[in-house]
Amino acid sequence: MTAEQRLERQLAFVLEIDRLKQIRRQTLLTDRSRQENSAEHSWHMAVMALLLAENAAEENLNLLRVLQMLLVHDIVEIDAGDTFCYDEEGRKNQQEREEAAAERIFGLLPEDQAEEVRSIWEEFEARNTPEARFAAALDRLQPLLQNATTDGLQWRVHGVTRDRVIERNRIMKQGAPALWQRARSLIDQAVENRNLKP
Amino acid sequence: MTAEQRLERQLAFVLEIDRLKQIRRQTLLTDRSRQENSAEHSWHMAVMALLLAENAAEENLNLLRVLQMLLVHDIVEIDAGDTFCYDEEGRKNQQEREEAAAERIFGLLPEDQAEEVRSIWEEFEARNTPEARFAAALDRLQPLLQNATTDGLQWRVHGVTRDRVIERNRIMKQGAPALWQRARSLIDQAVENRNLKP
Repeated sequence: MTAEQRLERQLAFVLEIDRLKQIRRQTLLTDRSRQENSAEHSWHMAVMALLLAENAAEENLNLLRVLQMLLVHDIVEIDAGDTFCYDEEGRKNQQEREEAAAERIFGLLPEDQAEEVRSIWEEFEARNTPEARFAAALDRLQPLLQNATTDGLQWRVHGVTRDRVIERNRIMKQGAPALWQRARSLIDQAVENRNLKP
Repeated sequence: MTAEQRLERQLAFVLEIDRLKQIRRQTLLTDRSRQENSAEHSWHMAVMALLLAENAAEENLNLLRVLQMLLVHDIVEIDAGDTFCYDEEGRKNQQEREEAAAERIFGLLPEDQAEEVRSIWEEFEARNTPEARFAAALDRLQPLLQNATTDGLQWRVHGVTRDRVIERNRIMKQGAPALWQRARSLIDQAVENRNLKP
């Protein structure tokens, strides 16, 4: 492959992932004007990683690896869509759909980079490294913060209960115990304010 | 400051920057359905940095620093707004507006982090490091790619000419000569296809 061909494949991927800006998540913006999309959600978490790394469970985190995971982990949603975390039906074939998406979308890149991005995505999904566990904690904290700030509007719309929120988010504890502690008090407050069903 | 107070300030900043998702840029999404916002633009460039670093003018770039700059450099737009790069009037007091924005928004953070984020932003603005020059090149390439892909719709709307596009984007050459070469051919093609005035 010539350098020009390599760059063409990289740019084809860059243009393809523009579509992540159209993938709508359940989470509302703090001003409640609309649901956020997966591209801006990814940006938000990446900035959070820069500022909250001191709260990670393990010291000496490879912050670059955390950022790589947060920046690419939602790209598969371009084909697979965003699966709402409390949608049990949708979650059944989520893995299959995302697998096919990874194959197609990462496959636009030059082979070495396709493999690299795939390994970043797989590390995030497997949660076997301190970096992946911290990234996963931020992926839970960001929507929880937005939900708490918008009076639990999306929890109420979907009839989500406290137990399910805790069940879904407790993995935060592995990656960032201090953030999980804060999240727990946000959840308790939401129940108290009747924004979340007990 | 207690650990709790420190975290509260960090989370106040995290919620504040949600507003970057509402800052509309002139660039269209590739499907032309709407203009992009500064949060998703920042995400897009950060992914580009991961994939295109091999095109940077200098080797052994500190990629983490590039990502830090790309992720935070637009945050001042929450107060200052996005200034269209061909709007000469708007650009006159841009620096002043952004300075005040940096003061207020970064000031939400604990002092050490406020200073850190400010130094990241200033490094990006000054373009005195290889990392800042590469980040600046991506900040030019991303909208240029989107404009070229949408048949120069926004160039045509604003009556922008080839000379001004070259004038605006030639700094790409300092940070990433190979990307500038590709950009030049995109510009020439756009003129040929009558998407950009000669």
